[in-house]
Parts: sequence; structure tokens; C-alpha cells
Amino acid sequence: MKEITVFAPATVANVSCGFDVLGFAIDGIGDTMTLKKVSEKGITIIAIEGADLSLETKKNVAGVAGLAMLEALNADFGFEISIKKGIPLGSGIGGSAASAAAVVFGINQFLDEPLSLQELAYFGMKGEAVASGNEHADNVAPSLFGGFTLIPGYDPFEVISLPVPSELYVTIIHPHIEIKTKEAREILPKYVSLKDAITQSGNLAGLISGLYTDNYELISRSVRDVLIEPHRKQLLPHFDSVKELALTNGALAFGISGSGPSMFALCRGELKALELEQHLTQFYQRKGLEIDGYVSKVSRNGSRIL
Amino acid sequence: MKEITVFAPATVANVSCGFDVLGFAIDGIGDTMTLKKVSEKGITIIAIEGADLSLETKKNVAGVAGLAMLEALNADFGFEISIKKGIPLGSGIGGSAASAAAVVFGINQFLDEPLSLQELAYFGMKGEAVASGNEHADNVAPSLFGGFTLIPGYDPFEVISLPVPSELYVTIIHPHIEIKTKEAREILPKYVSLKDAITQSGNLAGLISGLYTDNYELISRSVRDVLIEPHRKQLLPHFDSVKELALTNGALAFGISGSGPSMFALCRGELKALELEQHLTQFYQRKGLEIDGYVSKVSRNGSRIL
Repeated sequence: MKEITVFAPATVANVSCGFDVLGFAIDGIGDTMTLKKVSEKGITIIAIEGADLSLETKKNVAGVAGLAMLEALNADFGFEISIKKGIPLGSGIGGSAASAAAVVFGINQFLDEPLSLQELAYFGMKGEAVASGNEHADNVAPSLFGGFTLIPGYDPFEVISLPVPSELYVTIIHPHIEIKTKEAREILPKYVSLKDAITQSGNLAGLISGLYTDNYELISRSVRDVLIEPHRKQLLPHFDSVKELALTNGALAFGISGSGPSMFALCRGELKALELEQHLTQFYQRKGLEIDGYVSKVSRNGSRIL
Repeated sequence: MKEITVFAPATVANVSCGFDVLGFAIDGIGDTMTLKKVSEKGITIIAIEGADLSLETKKNVAGVAGLAMLEALNADFGFEISIKKGIPLGSGIGGSAASAAAVVFGINQFLDEPLSLQELAYFGMKGEAVASGNEHADNVAPSLFGGFTLIPGYDPFEVISLPVPSELYVTIIHPHIEIKTKEAREILPKYVSLKDAITQSGNLAGLISGLYTDNYELISRSVRDVLIEPHRKQLLPHFDSVKELALTNGALAFGISGSGPSMFALCRGELKALELEQHLTQFYQRKGLEIDGYVSKVSRNGSRIL
């Protein structure tokens, strides 16, 4: 085998109560990457389609993630990669993470002793740092593993694959505004009240329990964010109104996807998710804002060979 | 039926990563209470054995919890209760919560339409407030339910019963020093760094996942406390040394039980827990400090009729 094409899905990170530790994969949207093994060491990016991104290896998340992996493996070969971005840049559904996931997943297919998905997530995270300015894996992990993933800790680095209730769907709303991940981080407070920290940890614990027990009501009560959303929502036009609209139209929960601008609504069943997409799309149209909407199962599928 | 005797077990609250939201029940230690239904409304405490506590209803956790329940039910009857404290006062293993659990559990046996354990925990919490100065249910819930309980939120108030891995044992070390719950609260910071809050929520999420999947290694890595222990450990003589001793002698995790002074070590298997009890007891003896040690399964049994 000299060449392979892989797909890595878009993802929703944070999921309101799991800032920097939780994420899930979306079906049908993602980045596609072709990797060609070459004798020259390193990563050469020969083409990027669908986005205006640097071809320079060290300025590109896929380049950095791939290099980190090849260097750690002490590989005496390299790759030429071409990337087809299926995830709009800066949309907040894990575009850079998908490219990072794709490159490490792709390289892994060429190894005599392939790495585990957790090890791949670690190298993927190295690429992510280029985009976000800090190393976190809450997008790259679900893009690799699929489903819900939890990163209980970074020291040691660990990824836990969580069960996905079968009727769990998501509606994604992507308003066409730009939020830089770095800026979305800078808006956050350095300190939070102990009381809010405890409330948030109870929410996250409730969500984890709800996922293990298919308890949609508990999931609904738990996907709430008292730490991050109160600060970031000001970056999103009409956030409070659209959240209320979602919750009064049957969404289990509504929040900011990653650092935005995309927002997600968890729904029970595809029909509910599709109805909600309509409601929310119409809301933004009335406001004169351009948006995209997607509906997807919370997907058990992670990165895969095409 | 006019009279009943019930038992409510001791409990470990917080469990390092679950401040105010998590707790588990201990086998064999607890409070015993006899309740006699009488025509006079309210709660009359006729005797308390094993501790020097107020017989005045409104100054006693069992009195307050029982009253809260009877008033909410608009009961036209009352109870005479006698309490046998099996849990040393101020030991940090849920002594006041056990009395609160016992009274609401006992009253419930006399009702035509008994309340759920979650509803009982709510009234038990009202009694707890007398002892701790704030309403929380992380001791009273496991004393009623048994096993591990999670309180994902107080608004709405909810208790989730979590699975207990079958080989999970606990060694309790109770040094004979006094720590007032209110003081232990006052030592805590009002604000914590967002980074620590996220670390802690990852720990709690990891523990919840570990309990659902019988993953002792994950439990071990997750029962860690970066928010509370760093402040409270100064109240406990030799805390760092004894923690290190526990962890190097096979404990999965070690921490402060509730607001102390008791400490707990989680162990896999009874033998390990018994060995550890010896090590830790000897350590304190060498230091000239008086302590009690207990070993128990993390018990699936909550409050029960004797």
C-alpha cells in the first residue's frame, strides 16, 4: 500500500458541561485526506481544497500532528498529503481537529505496529495546539474514536469512550460569523466560584451517568453550563433567544459547540432534530443572519478508511 | 405496627473528587433508631445513647428532618424516637446524616403512601443543615440508598444510584481530633482557578465512568482532589505522610472523608484493606496519636429495618 484516503468526522466539544474534557462525533460532515507514503521524511502538504490554509507543514495542524507522530516513531519515511476540508473553517465543530485526526489515523494504517486510538489522540492534540494555542483533545478524541469521549485527565493522558444512547440526535446551527478560538479563550475568567465549579462537576457527572443508563431526562438536566456559556454567549448574536426557542421546541439541551460560533441542540429522535433545525433556521432568517444547519445522529463512527 | 427499629449506615462523602455531590455507604457502622408512632404531632426525642446531643427537637438533626417530613405530609400524628449513636460524633463519616436518614426512613414505614428514597433524602437534608450550616445531601443520600450516590444537582434535587464494583473496599482511619464541619467549610476558598475546576470535573467524570465499567485503574486515577484537600489537609496531622503510605501500600486512592477528621482509602479486595488498616494504625501509634480503624465493603446496603 502506498496511498490511502481517510475520513475524520466533525465533532462537538465541551457539550456545555464538559469544557476541555468532553466531545462527540457528528455523522456526514468531516475532512477527507489522502496520504501517500514517500521515502523523504516529514509531511509535505501538496494540496488543500475547500479552505484557504497554509501549506507550510509547521503552520498546519495536520502537518504538526503528523510530524509529532513521525518523530516520536523515529520513522525513516514520510508522507505527502492532500486535504479536502469538508468542515467550514472557524465553524466550531472541530475542523482543525478533524484534519489532525485524519493525518494520524492515516499514518497509522502504514505502521507495522499500529498505535492505539488513545495514542493517536495524543499526537492529534499536538496539532490542535497550532489552532487553539493550547493542547486539548476534546475534539480530536471523538473525531478518532467516534461517539462520546471523555478525557478524565491529561496527566496521564487518557481517553474514555462513553456509550451513546441510540436515539440521541444533534442539530447544529452554524451562523456565518467568525470567532477565533484564542479570543474565545481569552474571554473566560481565570477564576470561578467554588459553588459554580461544584454545580458544573455535578452536571458533567450527571451526563456521564445518563449516557451509561440511556436516561434522556438526566442528560437533558445535565447538559448545562454555568462556567463558560455565561461569558461566551455574548459572542453569539441572539444566543438567549435561540436557546429558549430550542428548549421550548423540544431540545433536550442547547449550548455552544466548542468555542463557537456553531451551537448544538441535543434531541431525542431524528424527527425532533429536523423540526428544530427548521425552527432555528427560520429564526435566524428573520433576523437577517446567514446560517447553515445540519442534523446528525450522535455518531458512533470515528475516523475511517474510505 | 406502632414501633419500629431501623438502622442507617455511616457514609463517606465527597470521595475526593465529588465535593457536595458524591458519597458512599459503609457496612457495619451506623445509627440505630426506634420510632414509636404517637397521636401527638411532631417529634419527641426521648433518649440518645452513645453521644451527648440535644434532646430538643429543633436542635437535633433527626428532630429537624423528621419534623420537615411530617409537616410536608401534613401528618396528624407524631413520633417518639430513641437514638443509639453508633457513629462517633464529629468523626466525618456521616454521623448526623445517619440520624437524619434513620428518622425519615423510619417514618416512611408508617405511611400509607411511602415516599421514594429520593424524597426521603430531600427531607433528610433539611436535618443535615442543622449540623453543617448548609443543605447538602452527600451523606444522607448514600445512608438511605446504600452504594455510591451522586447528586447531579440540587435544582431540581435528584439522587442517582451508581453501580458499585464488587471488590471495592474501604479502610477508614479516624484520628481522635475534632474538626467542626462549619470550620472545615470556612477554610475553603470562595474562588478556584478555572483550570483546577476543569481538572476536578474530569476526575469526577472519570470516577463515574470507572464505577459503571468496574475499571479499578480508572477509579484510582480519578479519586483525586485538587480543590478541597489542599486546603483541608492542614487540619489533619501528618496527612501527606499517611497518604503517601497508603498509596505506596496498595490503596487505589486516599482522601478526606467528608470534612474530616476521618480519612478513607479505597482498596481492591478485603485483604488489601485490612493490611492497609494495620499499616496506617501503626503509623499513627508511632506518632502517639489515638485513632480508630475500620474496614468495610463499599456497601450496597442503605437504611433498613432491623
